[in-house]
Formats: sequence, structure tokens, C-alpha cells
Amino acid sequence: MRLEHLHPKGTRVVIGTLAFPREDIVAFARDFDPQPFHLDEEAARRSLFGGLCASGWHTASGWMKTFVAFWTEESRRLAADGIVPPKLGPSPGFRELKWLKPVYAGDSITYAVTFLSARAVESRPGWRMNTILCEGRNQFDEDVIRFESSVIEFV
Amino acid sequence: MRLEHLHPKGTRVVIGTLAFPREDIVAFARDFDPQPFHLDEEAARRSLFGGLCASGWHTASGWMKTFVAFWTEESRRLAADGIVPPKLGPSPGFRELKWLKPVYAGDSITYAVTFLSARAVESRPGWRMNTILCEGRNQFDEDVIRFESSVIEFV
Repeated sequence: MRLEHLHPKGTRVVIGTLAFPREDIVAFARDFDPQPFHLDEEAARRSLFGGLCASGWHTASGWMKTFVAFWTEESRRLAADGIVPPKLGPSPGFRELKWLKPVYAGDSITYAVTFLSARAVESRPGWRMNTILCEGRNQFDEDVIRFESSVIEFV
Repeated sequence: MRLEHLHPKGTRVVIGTLAFPREDIVAFARDFDPQPFHLDEEAARRSLFGGLCASGWHTASGWMKTFVAFWTEESRRLAADGIVPPKLGPSPGFRELKWLKPVYAGDSITYAVTFLSARAVESRPGWRMNTILCEGRNQFDEDVIRFESSVIEFV
């Protein structure tokens, strides 16, 4: 089964929710983005953000984490129904990533994907390139991250 | 001092090198991208990649890690020379991120930034929006990641 048949164009699919507790925000920031507003409550309060918030790369990586869990479960579900799941490959990249609002300590982000389009890859017979819209919203239903990703599919 | 004066348009500045040992690749993947080719040597060998390689989000977060270290040092250096360093703010996002080649266990990625343009932000007096090209190359001088980032500056 192809991805474009599993999720018809324009259908928004919620893939899961990830919590951003303070400890996780600080742990990610220590490793990859040690700026004061990601590390220290007091410094964050005095910053443009007004409170401790996650590195944008943490929010983006959280989308991947949620997608991998979702896709693993989705593939299992399809296989249990006797359907061969779409065989997804790596992503060559993405477009127009926007961090729309900060993700503060204690926020929960619900991620979603919307299938946008699919096309054959001329140089690689049997490969298709899918474009999906990836989004994350906080518990107040405010958009915090959005980007368009390309995903290879083997057919 | 404005960023555009510190780094003239088109000047490519190497910001540092980050090693990707197997342990770091697996640790990041366990947290955020637990796909077989990021976790398990044998599964990776049988995959499209042919060997254990880093999550693309790890490679991207590595750019941030390297940039924060570079910018901290650069600000210190300017201040020591009596120059007020550019006051950079958060990034609203970026464009056209491309993962050009896998980053394999044992690779070292040298990251660079090239200053592309700056403009006033009409809705926010005193804010400027800078566009920078961000790149990573491996030890064989092959490009592995490239994206264009926006960075707010307060003047």
C-alpha cells in the first residue's frame, strides 16, 4: 500500500503528544543549545521569552520521536490487518520550518502530519517522494512548530 | 556592532567541529529517532545507508551546539577588544534544510556560517532579521547538511 492511499491528501493525522518537563528541556539544552533561556529559570524570566523554554531543535526532534512511535504502531496495525505497510525511507530534508511560539517547561505538544503530495523520482525507479506537512500544537491549541518534510517511499 | 559589519556578506566562517562517535549517535537516536539504522550496526549495514549513521536531527542540533560555543567565544573576543558584540535573539525558523549525505559513526563534522543578508523588521523597531547559510562538511570535505536560517538581531 502506498502512503498516498493510506492517508488521503489533506487529511490531518494526529500522531501523538510529547511532554516537555523542565528536566528534559534542560538536558537537551545542555547537550545542544546551552543558551540561558533554555537552562536557567531566572535568566529565562528576564529574556524575551519570559520563561524557561525548549530549544527549537528539541521541539523539532520531538516531532521525529513522536512520528517514529506512531509509524511503528501504524505499521503493526496494518500488518495485523494483512496489509503491507508503505515502506518509508529516509528524508532528504525539509522546507520552511517555523518556530511559531516558545515551548515552555510543562507544555505538552501534540504533533500531526498532513499528507500533501507524492511524485515519482525520475532518477530512481521504484522510489516516490512524498511531501508532508508536520505540525505541533501546545495544550492551548496554539501552533508552536510547522514545517514541510520530504519522505522517500519504496514501491 | 551589527552582525552584517562583523561578517561581511558572503564570507564563510568555520564555527567548529563536532565528533559523532557511535555512543553519541545511539544516545540521540534512543531519545528522538529510534530507527534501526541509527541504533544497531548490523541493521544499519543492511539498510540503504550501509552503516550506523546519525539522525538528521542530531546533525542539525550539532550545528546549534557548535554555533552557541562559537558565538560565546566570539562575543568574549569582541568584548575584550572593547567592541559591543551584536545582540542576537532567537530564530523564527529556517528554510530548505537538506541532509546531503549520512553522518556515519566516527565522522567529524565541521560547521560553517555564511552571512547572506540583513533587513529591518518593519513591525518591530530596533529589530533586524539576518539570513545566514549554515553548512556542515565531513572529514572528506563532503557536504552533509545545509540550511538557511533566520536570526533576529536587536540594534
